[in-house]
Amino acid sequence: MHKNYLLTPGPTPLPPQVLEAMSRPIIHHRTPQFQAILKEVSEGLKYVYQTKNDVFILASSGTGAMEASVTNLLSAGDTALVVQGGKFGERWTEICYAYGITVEVIDVEWGKAVNPFLVEQKLKANSKIKAVFTTLCETSTGVVNDIASIGKVVKNTEAVLVVDAISGLGAIDLKTDAWSCDIVVSGSQKGLMLPPGLSFISVSPKAFKLIEASKSPRYYLDLREAKKALDKTDTPFTPAITLIIALTEAFKIIKQDGLENIFLRHRKMADATRAAMKALGLAIFAPTASSDVVTAVCVPVGLDGEKLVKTMRDSYGVTIAGGQGKLKGKIFRIAHMGFIEEFDIITGISCLEKVLTQMGYKFQLGSGIKAAEEVFL
Amino acid sequence: MHKNYLLTPGPTPLPPQVLEAMSRPIIHHRTPQFQAILKEVSEGLKYVYQTKNDVFILASSGTGAMEASVTNLLSAGDTALVVQGGKFGERWTEICYAYGITVEVIDVEWGKAVNPFLVEQKLKANSKIKAVFTTLCETSTGVVNDIASIGKVVKNTEAVLVVDAISGLGAIDLKTDAWSCDIVVSGSQKGLMLPPGLSFISVSPKAFKLIEASKSPRYYLDLREAKKALDKTDTPFTPAITLIIALTEAFKIIKQDGLENIFLRHRKMADATRAAMKALGLAIFAPTASSDVVTAVCVPVGLDGEKLVKTMRDSYGVTIAGGQGKLKGKIFRIAHMGFIEEFDIITGISCLEKVLTQMGYKFQLGSGIKAAEEVFL
Repeated sequence: MHKNYLLTPGPTPLPPQVLEAMSRPIIHHRTPQFQAILKEVSEGLKYVYQTKNDVFILASSGTGAMEASVTNLLSAGDTALVVQGGKFGERWTEICYAYGITVEVIDVEWGKAVNPFLVEQKLKANSKIKAVFTTLCETSTGVVNDIASIGKVVKNTEAVLVVDAISGLGAIDLKTDAWSCDIVVSGSQKGLMLPPGLSFISVSPKAFKLIEASKSPRYYLDLREAKKALDKTDTPFTPAITLIIALTEAFKIIKQDGLENIFLRHRKMADATRAAMKALGLAIFAPTASSDVVTAVCVPVGLDGEKLVKTMRDSYGVTIAGGQGKLKGKIFRIAHMGFIEEFDIITGISCLEKVLTQMGYKFQLGSGIKAAEEVFL
Repeated sequence: MHKNYLLTPGPTPLPPQVLEAMSRPIIHHRTPQFQAILKEVSEGLKYVYQTKNDVFILASSGTGAMEASVTNLLSAGDTALVVQGGKFGERWTEICYAYGITVEVIDVEWGKAVNPFLVEQKLKANSKIKAVFTTLCETSTGVVNDIASIGKVVKNTEAVLVVDAISGLGAIDLKTDAWSCDIVVSGSQKGLMLPPGLSFISVSPKAFKLIEASKSPRYYLDLREAKKALDKTDTPFTPAITLIIALTEAFKIIKQDGLENIFLRHRKMADATRAAMKALGLAIFAPTASSDVVTAVCVPVGLDGEKLVKTMRDSYGVTIAGGQGKLKGKIFRIAHMGFIEEFDIITGISCLEKVLTQMGYKFQLGSGIKAAEEVFL
């Protein structure tokens, strides 16, 4: 017998309603029936994005929407500013390079948030910067950036602000309009409680001007075509039908709970996880800027971090994430994002306590759970 | 957002494979395809029953199979001995009364197991007793009876032994043949990890002789017809097709784990639950004969037991069972049966700790979990 618990920063567990929706007989997408669904999810997306901007749906994973941001906004030879404090910040740079875009990098120490003042300085120093690319939650380090402050800086310039909110949207606060985010990209398999396969991209009027001017080669991810289609409640290419239908179910859950309550639930889960780690004598990797969607924890000296993650998964069915890139084996990450609640966190901590004990780490058994229970009371 | 955790003694949680099987397109039952499935589940039933006897499948809940035992074995005016130590022992008596059968009752104090010596005495004192009806696990009290010893007593008499193993089969040991159980009835929604709707009944050659002789009126539950059909790998009436198909999936899980490992898992879950209750200062209702499928716990004096169960369920989605009959409000019952494992128990205990705290019960938060974790290490 094997039960699986997914405490990873994407994919996240799927609600039964979502599973059920995906097993309904498929319908055709060029029908009034599907058009009504598309309209419904477009409204749902505006709700979670907290925006009046158009939000496009792409049949791609999150990186597709990241690439769409770059190619639709910028042309070869243009200059971009990238906030790079982890693996996903680096991805912005890689995509820019692939399209011949000049990149100014703000190299942020992994585990720290970017100082918005640095963004301001860079923009002042180089008026060629057309777009600022940043990350809401840097999944690789558990850091959350202060998008509101970055937005204040960027909105008074010619540049547009592009936020990778793939990990975070629908789980922690991101006010697309109020924080002046010109483009926000996201994915289906995180806070939105769907399988991977859909990405989303909101576009402000300021960003649309750049989109019209961009000369980058693009076809599948061309947002001009996406805009034309959306204006007719349609998609330019075959949409991922079942995922979009399932999204209506996810939005029902989200609207019933309300964004504020969802953010609160994630905050509590993060607080409980952090309290538990502290009680277990484990250090948080990003203590000054911990996100509420994933907690990165330092592997204690002398312990094999990869083995820890592998044992939890293979022996007990509890999947957490290890470290990526230069953090491989040095941290593990417990996600608390999407269709996850109190008792999933309790399960994750209990399994962690079990495997830590088996690996010879010294602590008081049950102390992590106790600390978490105190937060959840 | 709402997650549900079922720690009740039936229904029990359903494995994903079982859910998936039930959503396959339905097939017809008078087909070679279904016949192969029927053959497969018949073999699976013999495995979990640990028997060479025929095991019949009825489209009914467990009580249907209990009634089938009574009406197929006995006629009005016959005498039965009933071991009655809880709500489900009483059910044997009620069914016997409904068919005009004279009942000798062994009234066992609720929370205690029957002393097999009493069964021996009763049988010696009254040679008219044709059948002994008992319960493997008395779900209402959390008691497990010593069927092996009762079997030794009954097998040397003219009487047959009938065991209600509805709660227990496939979760704790019951050796139908080795323990000389002439009839064992069970249901789908407990250790066998299916929804309710199927019952099972094994019949020994000794029992078949009585079945041929019984004059009780019966039609749907007539085991003579069931036998004729089973000999042709068929059922006398329309079977519950999807449930039987799902049973093939449950048996795959059971065979992969192996009965011994399954019994061990249930023992560990029960040990952990009992250790947790002790750490929380709560008394086990049946300390001398605790079953490994459900733990009945005394509600502390001054606490509202019904409110406790209701709050856990309605506020936090964790469903445990309250007391039944005269135990209403006085005990609660945590089941650990079927598709349940370590972290489900941890979840149940954590939720219990939370609600106990909210209700003002004094104990050290986390101590129940700690005790359970020690067992699971």
